[in-house]
Amino acid sequence: MNTDWIAVDWGTSSLRAWAIDAQGATLDTAQSTKGMGTLAPSEFEAALLELIEPWIKGSSANAPMQIIACGMVGARQGWIEALYAKVPSLPISATLTKAPTQDPRLDVQIVPGLSQSTPADVMRGEETQIAGFQAQFPKFDGIICLPGTHTKWAHVSAGEVVSFQSFMTGEMFALLSKHSVLKHSLRDGTWDDTAFDDALADTLSRPEKLASKLFTLRAEDLLKGLDGGAAKARLSGLLIGAELAAAKPYWLGQMVALIGDDGLTDLYASALKTQGIIAQRTNPTDMTLAGLKSARASILE
Amino acid sequence: MNTDWIAVDWGTSSLRAWAIDAQGATLDTAQSTKGMGTLAPSEFEAALLELIEPWIKGSSANAPMQIIACGMVGARQGWIEALYAKVPSLPISATLTKAPTQDPRLDVQIVPGLSQSTPADVMRGEETQIAGFQAQFPKFDGIICLPGTHTKWAHVSAGEVVSFQSFMTGEMFALLSKHSVLKHSLRDGTWDDTAFDDALADTLSRPEKLASKLFTLRAEDLLKGLDGGAAKARLSGLLIGAELAAAKPYWLGQMVALIGDDGLTDLYASALKTQGIIAQRTNPTDMTLAGLKSARASILE
Repeated sequence: MNTDWIAVDWGTSSLRAWAIDAQGATLDTAQSTKGMGTLAPSEFEAALLELIEPWIKGSSANAPMQIIACGMVGARQGWIEALYAKVPSLPISATLTKAPTQDPRLDVQIVPGLSQSTPADVMRGEETQIAGFQAQFPKFDGIICLPGTHTKWAHVSAGEVVSFQSFMTGEMFALLSKHSVLKHSLRDGTWDDTAFDDALADTLSRPEKLASKLFTLRAEDLLKGLDGGAAKARLSGLLIGAELAAAKPYWLGQMVALIGDDGLTDLYASALKTQGIIAQRTNPTDMTLAGLKSARASILE
Repeated sequence: MNTDWIAVDWGTSSLRAWAIDAQGATLDTAQSTKGMGTLAPSEFEAALLELIEPWIKGSSANAPMQIIACGMVGARQGWIEALYAKVPSLPISATLTKAPTQDPRLDVQIVPGLSQSTPADVMRGEETQIAGFQAQFPKFDGIICLPGTHTKWAHVSAGEVVSFQSFMTGEMFALLSKHSVLKHSLRDGTWDDTAFDDALADTLSRPEKLASKLFTLRAEDLLKGLDGGAAKARLSGLLIGAELAAAKPYWLGQMVALIGDDGLTDLYASALKTQGIIAQRTNPTDMTLAGLKSARASILE
């Protein structure tokens, strides 16, 4: 095997690596559940080695393997903090941060995140997906939305991220459905599209309704019984509707691209469609890998 | 001691009892942390007996001690379900629900909650405080707000609860500050009134901002450091502002009374004051006891 360099996506809950050859083709992939959230800083190197050991047999202190990593591995609680680049900025600026290693065969470079002063905001990992998207669609000018635990909306123009905004919608859904009084009513059940659409329309047109509508999910269940799937769809619609109301300056009248995992991203696509926006969809893993290749290319320049 | 009857406030996390004499004076009080949330239905009687045993020495199967209880003890997961009365309704209708007991000296009667069909809503415990408030202020016509884990706003007119609405603001604050990514930034610190007021004004005038402002607490802390007390005050202001925006049909141009514990109720009073409303304040425990006395009186009628 002729691994030229290794691409790594290291988030809070998972670690994924690709062995890349000199032509940019993927020779092999590997992944583990050793996300940075489960590791102490001293454990990062071992967790990575465990995964990539077969790919670095030919490497040495004189010819170390270059590893380009993105994600929470570069957070303050990660392997080493890769400082943020301030927007407006290229999604990946040329300055990567070298992580300290014991094994001299490793040359680990971490992609910095992006920050914004006003309103204060940060991203880490999504900048790589944005860079990957730009590599595939270099002429794109518009909005990239990355649904997730903390959904990001980014305004991209002339190759730069101009501004962005984060929403805690995904985390709110998880907290409310797992830890709040609503958990008793958000049982498993069949997803209800109409319940989602109605709830979405409610908070998208009148976002103040979010605060008043949440408890009705519990009350309606107590009083008349409510299907768990319908309840989940309504909660999701209420939260995404409130997000879309707040993010309107981003998407209104714009080209929108979505980068994210299928389930959640389907909901955003469907929500945007109710506003007349047909969003372009791309695969998030493909975008991450393409972004890591861009980062590698920027180092070589 | 000459206990005539016993008043009981039994919530999710605590149990409180008062021994009352024939003139309605409090002879003794007792409390424990055996809230209904910590007990199986079979354990209710023992938990109550543990507290009131000294007061029922003179009671017998022929002359049982009457115990009037309110709160979550009457929920479906409680001792026995005390069905809801539908609004519009007196806060406490005459029909209490008798709980099954092993000890023949006990005659336990549980106050029903209130329900509303549209929008679906329920309360359990607050109806007793509203009844207590009405006993003290029989001519009050207006809005009673009861801040708590699930804050209630109730429209009270001509002795009846006409309509009400619940907000999960208290629970959201707890979830976000204990379980979300914001927990890292909501450290202990000195409360910041200005931060509260500014955040309140933000979401009260533009409630859609709630969704977009939450993550800024984390981002601002990462980028420039943010005092934990200021962060908490801001989160609280954002959430209460969004609630007040949604509850505006309740409080706008109305007399408002607040029933709740000091800390949280201070915040609601201060928030309402920014809208020109000077809310009347009462002690929640006093209102509960007064309400239980009203319930007892309604049984005797």
